[in-house]
Amino acid sequence: MAQIYNFSAGPAVLPKEVLAQAASEMMDWHGSGMSVMEMSHRGPEFMSIFAAARADLRELLNVPSNYQILFLQGGGLGENAIVPLNLLGAAKNQPATIDFVHTGSWSGKSIKEAQKYAQVNVAASSEAQGFANIPALETWQLTKDAAYLHLCTNETIDGVEFQSLPQLNTSVPIVADASSHILSREIDISQYGVVFAGAQKNCGPAGLTMVIVREDLLGSALPICPSAFDWTVVAKHDSMYNTPPTYAIYIAGLVFAWLKRQGGVAAIEKINRAKAELLYSCLDKNSAVYRTKVAVECRSRMNVPFFLRNEALNETFLAGAREHGLLQLKGHKSVGGMRASIYNAMPYEGVAALVDYLNEFARRHG
Amino acid sequence: MAQIYNFSAGPAVLPKEVLAQAASEMMDWHGSGMSVMEMSHRGPEFMSIFAAARADLRELLNVPSNYQILFLQGGGLGENAIVPLNLLGAAKNQPATIDFVHTGSWSGKSIKEAQKYAQVNVAASSEAQGFANIPALETWQLTKDAAYLHLCTNETIDGVEFQSLPQLNTSVPIVADASSHILSREIDISQYGVVFAGAQKNCGPAGLTMVIVREDLLGSALPICPSAFDWTVVAKHDSMYNTPPTYAIYIAGLVFAWLKRQGGVAAIEKINRAKAELLYSCLDKNSAVYRTKVAVECRSRMNVPFFLRNEALNETFLAGAREHGLLQLKGHKSVGGMRASIYNAMPYEGVAALVDYLNEFARRHG
Repeated sequence: MAQIYNFSAGPAVLPKEVLAQAASEMMDWHGSGMSVMEMSHRGPEFMSIFAAARADLRELLNVPSNYQILFLQGGGLGENAIVPLNLLGAAKNQPATIDFVHTGSWSGKSIKEAQKYAQVNVAASSEAQGFANIPALETWQLTKDAAYLHLCTNETIDGVEFQSLPQLNTSVPIVADASSHILSREIDISQYGVVFAGAQKNCGPAGLTMVIVREDLLGSALPICPSAFDWTVVAKHDSMYNTPPTYAIYIAGLVFAWLKRQGGVAAIEKINRAKAELLYSCLDKNSAVYRTKVAVECRSRMNVPFFLRNEALNETFLAGAREHGLLQLKGHKSVGGMRASIYNAMPYEGVAALVDYLNEFARRHG
Repeated sequence: MAQIYNFSAGPAVLPKEVLAQAASEMMDWHGSGMSVMEMSHRGPEFMSIFAAARADLRELLNVPSNYQILFLQGGGLGENAIVPLNLLGAAKNQPATIDFVHTGSWSGKSIKEAQKYAQVNVAASSEAQGFANIPALETWQLTKDAAYLHLCTNETIDGVEFQSLPQLNTSVPIVADASSHILSREIDISQYGVVFAGAQKNCGPAGLTMVIVREDLLGSALPICPSAFDWTVVAKHDSMYNTPPTYAIYIAGLVFAWLKRQGGVAAIEKINRAKAELLYSCLDKNSAVYRTKVAVECRSRMNVPFFLRNEALNETFLAGAREHGLLQLKGHKSVGGMRASIYNAMPYEGVAALVDYLNEFARRHG
């Protein structure tokens, strides 16, 4: 098989080392005679896998001791409902108001879910600009005593990323949906009330969500919150109140261990920065052929949407990419065009191969 | 490694053939250059995996054409909330009432979750009998125009199983939590409104739930139901509204294909009956040493709880079992004692090995 590079936005590429280890341990984990899939979640074997994964995630993200790390079933869309179900019980104002900054498809989905449970204030939106930027902080119309402020810190579909958290000087908890860039760059968890992420971008298989929550925010679930998704219940039972997605946690643990071997988040961030610079500079250089929409200062390092100026060539572009072993470059159906997702597990060489193809295609069709 | 038999109640033993295939395909599924974990859920590769899994499940359970099969994130506890969130919008009486037959720990959990959303009527309960039987049908106090009747058709912890569905002569939809015996015996889906099951007993890894729902019951979710768990939304988008647990679906699909190779549900039911008879008759024969609680006519073929009459020997029993390669026999913490879960993937030889050990232990300690 020729070298393949998989640019899927998620489920996404995983480190080859991780997959090789998972394959070798599939029939018999560490002499236990069992696959990890077959283990009771309450047995000593899986408990050790779970504890190591959680400790490694805490170390990698430098999670302060007053934050709990929860592993839950589900994904980002579910969590968009689970966040308000968990936080609205503590709202000072009734009916509660949640503030959102609307920067793309995923914050849009969050708004729609939150409207089931509370009033929503869109404090700022770049929708009129086609989600090409992040609204300037001075334009944000925040609600006094909002239940919380929700940010999607990397918009997977639109390719918009907060490069840092604005200085808000507020006691309102900030909730970050970091699904598609968690572990790709250093962040200061202590600035947030909640950071959550679906696993299937930078961490592992779909079906697992990680929630990092400040302990004082626990205990505030609405009575209608299902027990399986009540963070307080989950935290009290060490993510074992119900059966967690054990195999996905195992794979995520292998990814965390791999990331530590790469030197941790600071080291991978350097590589991610280099990968993104390589790709964006190629697109900019060939701007007669390719078009990007996102303002330079908001460009995502993880998800790079781009468009052929001649969209009649889309299928030609994708077919040629596949011939070069460059897979899953088609953009999300809601925005069209192309998208290269270049998560932690995408090696620099993969981006270099894509850039070679982009240059070649531009020469031929420019 | 000596032969191991894993009696975990879930996550549980999987067919060796399935694990071997998963290991061999881990790095490269069918020449795609990708692991199944790395595939976009909307790509042609995963779509083919998904379609085959769903079609095989439909065939294995002989699901009528007016039923949808949904694959969702999560597990049984979550689904205990998701069921009322999906069905209560159609309730004829407001406030809605849900009928339950309380036959063990899992129907108890379902009652607790349902109380978040509706009035609960416990139509019958065997709690006073220590969940040793199923209340006789003539004692059930059903509610006229209940939103639905919930049954846990196999109680995993207590080892109580409905051998058939009582003749109820009601138009109230019957919801079956079949998590721990789905695909182990033939059932007539058309008698139910909803049959749901977490995967991690007879189907695959934890983190996946299958819901089989009659189409006329769709469209009745409460406004507070999270979109990711709204069956109508999930059905409309072919279980792809959000990212489903792709790898768990792949493994479940391999299990379904394996089950078809065994001859399907009718064939595996014969083996399951033989396994259960072998084990229960051994326990009955050695009743001076072992004790079972469940009435003979309600004994589960999947989960066999038993107790040593001399509980001081519990640790000795478990240590000896481990030496014989018989793993995860400890009973659920809420009931103590022992439990042998003998799902589809447990071969007859595994039960025979357990019976040999039970006989030997009884001779030594009787």
